[in-house]
Amino acid sequence: KMLRRVLLTALFMGALPSLAEVSQGHISVVLLGATGDLAKKYLWQGLFQLYMDQVSSGHSFTFHGAALTALEPGQRLMFDVLKKLACPPDESPNRCAVLKDQFLKLSQYHQLKTAENYTVLNREIETLLRQEGLKEAGRIFYFSVPPFAYTEVARHINSSCRPPPGAWLRVVLEKPFGHDLESAQQLAAELTSFFREEEMYRVDHYLGKQAVAHILPFRDQNRQFLDPIWNRHHVERVEIVLKETVDAKGRTSFYEQYGVIRDVLQNHLTEALMFLAMELPANVSRAEEVLQCKLQAFQSLRGLEKNSAVLGQYQAYASQVQEELQKAQDYISTTPTFAGVLIHSDNLRWEGVPFLLTSGKALDERVGYVRVLFKNRAYCTQSETLRDAGQSQCKAKQIIFYIGHGALKTPAVLVSRNLFRPVMPEGSWREAVGQSDLHIFGQPLSDYYVYSPVKERDAYSVLISNIYHGRKDFFITTENLLASWGFWTPLLDSISHQPLRLYPGGVENQHLLDFEMVSGEVAFTLAEPVELLNPSGLMPSDYRTIQSKFRQSPLISAWSEDLISQLASDIEKTASRTVAHSGQFHLALSGGSSPAVLFQRLARHHYAFPWKHTHIWLVDERCVPLSDTESNFFSLHNHLLQNVRVPYFNVHPMPVHLNQRLCVEEDRGTELYAKEIMALVANASFDLVLLGVGTDGHTASLFPRSENGLEGAQTVVLTESPVKPHQRMSLSLPLINKARQVFVLVLGKGKHDITTLLSRVGHEPRKWPISGVSPSSGQLVWYVDYEALLG
Amino acid sequence: KMLRRVLLTALFMGALPSLAEVSQGHISVVLLGATGDLAKKYLWQGLFQLYMDQVSSGHSFTFHGAALTALEPGQRLMFDVLKKLACPPDESPNRCAVLKDQFLKLSQYHQLKTAENYTVLNREIETLLRQEGLKEAGRIFYFSVPPFAYTEVARHINSSCRPPPGAWLRVVLEKPFGHDLESAQQLAAELTSFFREEEMYRVDHYLGKQAVAHILPFRDQNRQFLDPIWNRHHVERVEIVLKETVDAKGRTSFYEQYGVIRDVLQNHLTEALMFLAMELPANVSRAEEVLQCKLQAFQSLRGLEKNSAVLGQYQAYASQVQEELQKAQDYISTTPTFAGVLIHSDNLRWEGVPFLLTSGKALDERVGYVRVLFKNRAYCTQSETLRDAGQSQCKAKQIIFYIGHGALKTPAVLVSRNLFRPVMPEGSWREAVGQSDLHIFGQPLSDYYVYSPVKERDAYSVLISNIYHGRKDFFITTENLLASWGFWTPLLDSISHQPLRLYPGGVENQHLLDFEMVSGEVAFTLAEPVELLNPSGLMPSDYRTIQSKFRQSPLISAWSEDLISQLASDIEKTASRTVAHSGQFHLALSGGSSPAVLFQRLARHHYAFPWKHTHIWLVDERCVPLSDTESNFFSLHNHLLQNVRVPYFNVHPMPVHLNQRLCVEEDRGTELYAKEIMALVANASFDLVLLGVGTDGHTASLFPRSENGLEGAQTVVLTESPVKPHQRMSLSLPLINKARQVFVLVLGKGKHDITTLLSRVGHEPRKWPISGVSPSSGQLVWYVDYEALLG
Repeated sequence: KMLRRVLLTALFMGALPSLAEVSQGHISVVLLGATGDLAKKYLWQGLFQLYMDQVSSGHSFTFHGAALTALEPGQRLMFDVLKKLACPPDESPNRCAVLKDQFLKLSQYHQLKTAENYTVLNREIETLLRQEGLKEAGRIFYFSVPPFAYTEVARHINSSCRPPPGAWLRVVLEKPFGHDLESAQQLAAELTSFFREEEMYRVDHYLGKQAVAHILPFRDQNRQFLDPIWNRHHVERVEIVLKETVDAKGRTSFYEQYGVIRDVLQNHLTEALMFLAMELPANVSRAEEVLQCKLQAFQSLRGLEKNSAVLGQYQAYASQVQEELQKAQDYISTTPTFAGVLIHSDNLRWEGVPFLLTSGKALDERVGYVRVLFKNRAYCTQSETLRDAGQSQCKAKQIIFYIGHGALKTPAVLVSRNLFRPVMPEGSWREAVGQSDLHIFGQPLSDYYVYSPVKERDAYSVLISNIYHGRKDFFITTENLLASWGFWTPLLDSISHQPLRLYPGGVENQHLLDFEMVSGEVAFTLAEPVELLNPSGLMPSDYRTIQSKFRQSPLISAWSEDLISQLASDIEKTASRTVAHSGQFHLALSGGSSPAVLFQRLARHHYAFPWKHTHIWLVDERCVPLSDTESNFFSLHNHLLQNVRVPYFNVHPMPVHLNQRLCVEEDRGTELYAKEIMALVANASFDLVLLGVGTDGHTASLFPRSENGLEGAQTVVLTESPVKPHQRMSLSLPLINKARQVFVLVLGKGKHDITTLLSRVGHEPRKWPISGVSPSSGQLVWYVDYEALLG
Repeated sequence: KMLRRVLLTALFMGALPSLAEVSQGHISVVLLGATGDLAKKYLWQGLFQLYMDQVSSGHSFTFHGAALTALEPGQRLMFDVLKKLACPPDESPNRCAVLKDQFLKLSQYHQLKTAENYTVLNREIETLLRQEGLKEAGRIFYFSVPPFAYTEVARHINSSCRPPPGAWLRVVLEKPFGHDLESAQQLAAELTSFFREEEMYRVDHYLGKQAVAHILPFRDQNRQFLDPIWNRHHVERVEIVLKETVDAKGRTSFYEQYGVIRDVLQNHLTEALMFLAMELPANVSRAEEVLQCKLQAFQSLRGLEKNSAVLGQYQAYASQVQEELQKAQDYISTTPTFAGVLIHSDNLRWEGVPFLLTSGKALDERVGYVRVLFKNRAYCTQSETLRDAGQSQCKAKQIIFYIGHGALKTPAVLVSRNLFRPVMPEGSWREAVGQSDLHIFGQPLSDYYVYSPVKERDAYSVLISNIYHGRKDFFITTENLLASWGFWTPLLDSISHQPLRLYPGGVENQHLLDFEMVSGEVAFTLAEPVELLNPSGLMPSDYRTIQSKFRQSPLISAWSEDLISQLASDIEKTASRTVAHSGQFHLALSGGSSPAVLFQRLARHHYAFPWKHTHIWLVDERCVPLSDTESNFFSLHNHLLQNVRVPYFNVHPMPVHLNQRLCVEEDRGTELYAKEIMALVANASFDLVLLGVGTDGHTASLFPRSENGLEGAQTVVLTESPVKPHQRMSLSLPLINKARQVFVLVLGKGKHDITTLLSRVGHEPRKWPISGVSPSSGQLVWYVDYEALLG
């Protein structure tokens, strides 16, 4: 009855749908947590906006607020909120008043606590629809409830509140969506048992911010200008920034568990990053294509390491936590409230372009922006004083998606005038008249084309409209969510005991939080901070690399990270010296996990390495195809070869895979490799052989009591490993001992016993093959980390 | 007698050498062209400075001016110059007056015209030395004579004026040292027949400019600061600039033959570039090490192409040439008076860093500098308005070697204060007191540490001192000279008919000469210049790519450059589509010179190409080792593979070199390749095969009347080529015809006849193998350039 009355009123007003359009069907919106903060602040207003926008769409609506509170007080609470709903400034006050009245009449409160409550709600909706003779189009359930309540609410909706066949169900979920990859997977698995993927709308309200939501349309509408420059050849850096002036006071019970990375970077800033970095789908309005491209962009992100981030904590945070969470006076929080993270994408479009994500609380200003700074490609022949101030190509070129607040105080899109005049959708964005005295990102505002939204719209109202339109690309799919957690979790794990830089907060921070990129990592610029929060005590770098003797040969020892960098730089020195002397450098490398770290270090930090003149040989190989993940060569390729430029001719994988067969005697792979060595390496004497040691004392693929390779004339041999894959190919001990230099790398606690043993035994290669390594005229150096050496 | 008198005077003065030191021996300096412009302006003053500096060194000196003029008038002319020699401001006037008097007494004029004149000169020197009882230390002959006189003067000196054994000879040569590589080689060969390499001192007076001469010492003394940042990770760009306000008026007879590249870039700017780009030798004062490093730096420069340069000519130049050289009114000069050139070094230190060399006449200011601009690596968390103005890491960082003139009006070394405080040699450079209102390179002068020379010294006086000290690293060796010409000559050849941009001259030039870097090339920023000097008429880009049919298949035709870019982008499109569809892309490529251009285009312009998922196969191969320059694979590697990132496993060279033998039947290379194709390529159907056509109608390595490969079941075959190397391996026609797409590329006038023939004949593979290309279920597209199509 109520609904019919409303429809009649609407018809009477003349501004509302005709009966024909009503046949589009009815939509029931259920807001769970209808009296909570988020609902009060944004959601009801967003639903009212939806109603105003869609009242003529042919859909009819009812709005159901729900909470745990009993009916009477709940109703009162909810209608107190609804009465305060505002009319947007661009709406005529008359129309708005009528619509608000209708909206209130279409809204009801429900207590949803028990299973029965849900059944009753479902019955009420069905009854209403039957009474009014309406077809059901769909139901929206908006979960504005704490995460612990999710599962239960989801179960009830699934079992009691599903619409009949032919109508859709959309459940809207609010973060947090887990705490790390594992918890997110668990939560996702639970939800998946109740809802299908297309039914779930995970909200990241940043995707509703007008400037963020316009990134993809902007890229699409300005393809002609951006296509040639949207790549590593032209983009110098990208900054994605959300600075807050508020601190975590009053919210520490949440914040202490999450910190800035989970709160802001993993979700909001990452989503903005994806919109910038992803390949542009042919059709940006097709949600599946957008999501597909976004997932691909996740896949090409380079993994984060602990030095990918700088972290800080404002000084008052500790005492706020102590107070609010009743912690002891000496309680130390390791939760970052500031983070700067350097991200690289390894695809050819973005290779080498730094993406800087920064966010923090208690900073000097509140501002959010996505800034793309282009490289300066121009040379201006005319002297500076004579250049045209307006559009000189020698001025900085940038595109900024200004999310809000800050100096501009409004969402905006800024494009440097010397770049291009952007195409903007006329109805929704308009060119802003500049305050010419404002400077922004190093330039006067007059240097930019500036556009701002015709109607400034709140993120939630944008998102609610997109839920209604089924635009899933404005929401976080399960795959997308897990990809993001998969990307961030290793960093979160590795920094859990990382020192935090303390900062005073606000304008007092000065240079304390400035940071710099160095060799793919970031570090605070000020080398000696006022104070470090360092709960784990002494850091590895407090120890120096030590040098002494081991088995009569030089020993270099340090914490593993320092040891690896020492080893990498020693290898580079040897390489440069050898190339200078003989024009080429023959390097034989072992497989395994320790070398992988070394390979990465060589690839990322040693740009002066003479790769062009280096020949890469394998010390040993497993009898699997080269492109098998078990292959030593595959790991070498992954961690080193694909990142440096060794000529194809200088790469010498072991021929374990001949005639499509693996290590078959008759294929004479060992002979072939031996011949290749003879042909290219003078005297078959490698310039440098890198070895490891197994816990059983094996080295290369020479195992204790091996029949081949420990002695004799054969230089390359087939051997048997006690562990899978059993078949191996290996350089022989006599060949290894012809090398000019042999470095043995031993890392980790697991090697402590064998290290101790080796320090005592003599030359017994049949028992411990590594003990037979003793270059006849070359040098042997041991690189053993503290864990292996000291246990 | 004269000399002894001078020595006595000197001893009497008390400031001059003791007799013991005199035993260092005597040096005779002969200045050929003693009354010419250069001698008047710089050289006599330089020699006087040498005398003042070295009078206490233990050497004694005589100075011999020489010219073609007869004795009497020559003497008069020369002494008119000598009388005007100036005392440097830092020298006490008394001492200088005495020394000038002595210098005049030690100087004589000689007419040097005939062979006999040289013999007489030699005899006079010998006599003088004998009379004074002096040991001879050495002789310096300074060639300040026009190039055409070089050979004759050199011959006479070599045959008549060599000092006795034990004393050295140093001949000093002034540019031009040739006009291109060939002429420079010829000139060098001639000189080498008269002088040993160590006797020749080729002057590039830029190496005597104090700021240029200090580049290497600066790099050496500041190793601690520069070592981590002197590389592609930190340097954004380098600018090496010499701008002149004067034009070529009065010098067009010289200038019209040379132009700005030969006049300034090939020598002065290139030398400055080398000092910046070369690896720093362990000991920068060892000339051999410096020269060795410099030569290596030349070797890693990437070859210049015609689009590596932008060229201009000031408007008045043409009429100046017409007037001075009596040319017709419609004479068009193709000599550039302005050039901006983009240079890349391909070593790992500098890969990707643009080195911009710019010089021109009739520009808006006179200034010379070498500017190293560093990348902005910092993120400043504090908002702009709150940043510390002094040393913020977010300000530009640069190091500038300011050669002279311009706003500073003095040689200087500038280092941004946020970079480091440089170590400077205390005696010779001092910190300058800044004019704080001056802006330079975008920043106030107060942002820099500024150093200027304690004594400002003219370049020639610096060089003459270095000749005396035998510092060969301040001069251009033959190897260095030829390396430089070897680098510049291809550009000079390719631009000889390049259009020149006309510029008005002076401050009127405005933006006309601004240029930009785009994909490794440069272009003027203003796309539509007021006027182009374009002697060769219509440009290729005036034609559009045309599409039609050829042999019943699609034909794409254009000028070769456009055709290549169309083909490259079609290949990329096919690759992306195929990878999107099936996850990988199997591309079979032909050898030869036309594909090489294509490969370069793919490597340099198609960063979005899905190389990671592309498999590279060879269409055919010559039976030579893969690393042989004749090998198709070698060329493919050189032009493509070393510049992109195709995984090692995806690269499939033909196995022409098995068991250290080439294409031996029993090694079953063809079978191996066929098996590899079967294993990896679905249905052995390549996604794309790129073919060429020979003038005899061959394609791949399938020649007319070949016994193998034109038909039959064999997919990979051994064939015989009529030209060397005869033995080949090739895909068979039936295999090629299984491909999904076949692109045939035909370029150049030389292919016109076969193209015409092919347009008429039917399917006759035994006569013309290419006519048998007809994919059974795939598509064939012809890419034929206008020259091949139209002759």
